[in-house]
Amino acid sequence: MGKITKRSPLAPAAFPALPVIDGVTFAAAQAGVRYQGRTDVMLARLAPGTTVVGTFTRSATRSAPVLDCQAKIGGASDGAAAIIVNSGNSNAFTGKNGVVSTRAVTSAVATTLGIDEARVFSSSTGVIGEPLPHDRITAKLAELADNLSPDGIEQAANAIMTTDTFPKGACAEVQIDGKTIKIAGIAKGSGMIAPDMATMLVYIFTDAQADRATLQTLLSGLTDVTFNCITVDSDTSTSDTLLLAATGASGVSVDGNAAFADALHGVMLDLAHQVIRDGEGATKFVEIAITGAATDADAKTHAMAIANSPLVKTAIAGEDPNWGRIVMAIGKSGAAADRDLLSIRFGDVLVAENGWVSPGYDEAQAAAHMKGQHLNISVDLGLGSGKSTVWTCDLTHGYIDINADYRS
Amino acid sequence: MGKITKRSPLAPAAFPALPVIDGVTFAAAQAGVRYQGRTDVMLARLAPGTTVVGTFTRSATRSAPVLDCQAKIGGASDGAAAIIVNSGNSNAFTGKNGVVSTRAVTSAVATTLGIDEARVFSSSTGVIGEPLPHDRITAKLAELADNLSPDGIEQAANAIMTTDTFPKGACAEVQIDGKTIKIAGIAKGSGMIAPDMATMLVYIFTDAQADRATLQTLLSGLTDVTFNCITVDSDTSTSDTLLLAATGASGVSVDGNAAFADALHGVMLDLAHQVIRDGEGATKFVEIAITGAATDADAKTHAMAIANSPLVKTAIAGEDPNWGRIVMAIGKSGAAADRDLLSIRFGDVLVAENGWVSPGYDEAQAAAHMKGQHLNISVDLGLGSGKSTVWTCDLTHGYIDINADYRS
Repeated sequence: MGKITKRSPLAPAAFPALPVIDGVTFAAAQAGVRYQGRTDVMLARLAPGTTVVGTFTRSATRSAPVLDCQAKIGGASDGAAAIIVNSGNSNAFTGKNGVVSTRAVTSAVATTLGIDEARVFSSSTGVIGEPLPHDRITAKLAELADNLSPDGIEQAANAIMTTDTFPKGACAEVQIDGKTIKIAGIAKGSGMIAPDMATMLVYIFTDAQADRATLQTLLSGLTDVTFNCITVDSDTSTSDTLLLAATGASGVSVDGNAAFADALHGVMLDLAHQVIRDGEGATKFVEIAITGAATDADAKTHAMAIANSPLVKTAIAGEDPNWGRIVMAIGKSGAAADRDLLSIRFGDVLVAENGWVSPGYDEAQAAAHMKGQHLNISVDLGLGSGKSTVWTCDLTHGYIDINADYRS
Repeated sequence: MGKITKRSPLAPAAFPALPVIDGVTFAAAQAGVRYQGRTDVMLARLAPGTTVVGTFTRSATRSAPVLDCQAKIGGASDGAAAIIVNSGNSNAFTGKNGVVSTRAVTSAVATTLGIDEARVFSSSTGVIGEPLPHDRITAKLAELADNLSPDGIEQAANAIMTTDTFPKGACAEVQIDGKTIKIAGIAKGSGMIAPDMATMLVYIFTDAQADRATLQTLLSGLTDVTFNCITVDSDTSTSDTLLLAATGASGVSVDGNAAFADALHGVMLDLAHQVIRDGEGATKFVEIAITGAATDADAKTHAMAIANSPLVKTAIAGEDPNWGRIVMAIGKSGAAADRDLLSIRFGDVLVAENGWVSPGYDEAQAAAHMKGQHLNISVDLGLGSGKSTVWTCDLTHGYIDINADYRS
C-alpha cells in the first residue's frame, strides 16, 4: 500500500470552495479496493444532454479504462452520463481480464443509474498489473447512487487520491450574455506518485452548453499548454485521463467564446500547477520560460530538457544558482541553439549572455532568488520568436524516499 | 571544489596492468588549476606518423577545446602529435576567452615539444563558465616534457579525474600476421559528476598502423554501441571527448581487420562500463537488453526510456522487481510497442507476457535477482528483429548528496 506522506510544503492553504454545477451530482464510498479506512470510489452523474470530451495518455501501454473511454468519447451523446473512478488499482497491464473488469463496472453503473453503458466513463488509478477486484466496486453502487449530491465534489476529490498529499480543486466563473457560467474541476496526481502507483486524473464540470467537436478542439488545445507542459520526473503514466463535462444547464452556448476559453484555461492551469505542487518530494515550484527559439516546438524541447534534467533539479533542491547546468541542458536538447546568443535569467537576475557569465552578474542575488519556494528560470535563445513555458519541481531526497526506500 | 566521495562499491579491484604502447609517452603534473595536492594535468606525446581520430559530444553548447579538437581532427597528419588534458576547469561556456585559453595551451605545447600546433589536441574537464587559468598549465609544460615516459599511463589516468572515485583503464592484445598489436585506454567520468563538474574523457592508444578515414569510421561505429549506449542520468556533457591514437610502431596495418575491431570494441566497452560503475551514487550495474523491436532504432529508444526513467532507477535502488515501471517506460518511449505482445525478464525470471504478469511468475525469484550488484533486465517486444543493449546504474540518495547537498 502506498506510503502516505505529510502534506506537501507547496500545498495551498485549503481546498477551494467549488461552486455547484447544475446537472452534476457526486458521491464517494469506501469500497476497500486496496486502501482501508478511507474513500476510494467516486461516482458523478451527469444530466441528460451533457457533452463529454476528453484527452488521454499517449502511452502505448495505456490501461483498460483509458482504452474504454477513448472508444466511447465522441459516440452516443443523448441521455444521462456517468463517471466512475476508483483509486488503489489502475487496472493497467492486466490483459484481457482488464477489459472484463472495466466492462463489469461500467455495465453495473449503467444498470444502477438506468443509463446507456456507452455513456459511462471509468478511470482506475493505483497499482499496475494486479487484477481489479471489481466486485468490491459494484457492491457499492447502490449506496453511491443513493448518496449522489450536488455538493459532493470535495468528497470526490478525496476519493480519487492515491498518495497525493492534498486533494486538488479549482474553479472559475465567466459572464456570458448576462448569465454566469460556472466551471469546477478536480485532479489527482504527482507524477507516477509512489511505488506501483500511477496516473494523473482530472475531471472538470461546467453548466455551459457546448458542441462536442468544438469543445473537444478547445480542450485538446488547452491541454497542450497546461497538463502537457508539466513534468515531475519525465515518467508518463499508463492511465492519464482528463474528462470535461458540459451539462448545458445554464442554457448558454460557449462555442467560440473567448472568455469561456480563458476561464477554462485558468482552471486547467491551476489544477496542473497543483499537481506540480504535490510532486514527489517537491520543495520548490519552478517555472521555466523559453523565448527567442527558432520555433515554439524548439522552445518546448529546450524547456523540457531543463525541466527533466536531474542535474538541474538537484541543483534547485540545493538552492544552487548553477547556470552551467542550464547551458548543459540546452546543449543536449537537440533543438537549435547558439551558445553565444543565449541569455539566462534566474528571477530578474541576468546570469549569462554572449556565451559567458554576464559581466554584472552577482551570484548573491541569484542565490537569494533560489531560496524562494517559487522560482523562475528564463532563457532567451536569440534566434527567433518561438516560446514555451513549462512547470516542474525539484528532485530531492524525498523523491528517493518515496520511490526506492520501501515496498509493499 | 568537487567533493571526493569514497570509492564506488562497483569499482574494479585495482587499476589494470596496461601494456606500453610503442610510440606513446606520458607525464602528469600538479598545476593547481583548481585542485590542490593532486595531479591535474596530463601530457601524452605521440610519435611521428601517428593517426589520430576522435568522436565528440553533440552538445550545441560544447566547450572550446572540443571545438578546437574537431577542427584539427582530419587535418595535418605528419609529424609528432600531443594530447594535453587538465582537470578542475572545463573551459566550457567561456566565450571568446575560452578560445584564447585553448590556443595558449596548445601553442605552448607545440613550442615545448617542437611539433605542429595543428597536431596538439587538448581537453579540459571541471567547472563550467569560469576562465581557465592557462598560465598554470603552461608553467608546467617543461616539467611535463622532461618527465615523459612510456609507462606513465596510470599517472595520466589519475590526473584527468575530477570527482571520479577510481581511475579507469582497459587494454587488449590481438595477434595479426604473427605480430602482437596492443591497445591501451584510459577514461574519466561518471555522468556530469559533481556540481559544476562535467565531462567524460577517453584516450585510447595502439601501436597498430591505420588509415585515418578507415579508423575514424571504425571508431564512430564502435562509439555508437559502447559510449553512446551508457547513461547515468540522461545529462549530456559539454565536453565529452574520445581520442584514439594509432602510432603504427608495430608496422602492422589493421585496416579492415575484424580481430582488431573486436579488441578495440572490448577496450571501449570495458571503459564505458567503468564509467557506469563510477556513476554518481551508483550501487547497481544494470544491463538493459531489448529484442524483438520493429527496428534497432526503436529498440534503443525503448532501452534508453527504461535506463533514464527515474522511477525505474529508484525501484532498482530499492531492490524492487517493479515490472510495472518497465511497462510504463516502454509505453512512454514513443517507439512502437504492443502491450499484449511484449515480455519482460529480470535475470532469467520471466515476469510478464501476453499483456499481464506471467502465470508462473514468482516474485521471490525476481526479488533475489534484484539483490545482486549486476542486474539484467530484458524485454522482447514481439514485433520484429530490432535489438539494442544499454547500460546504466541506479538512482540513490548518493546522487542527491553529490548534486544537491553542497556547493563550492
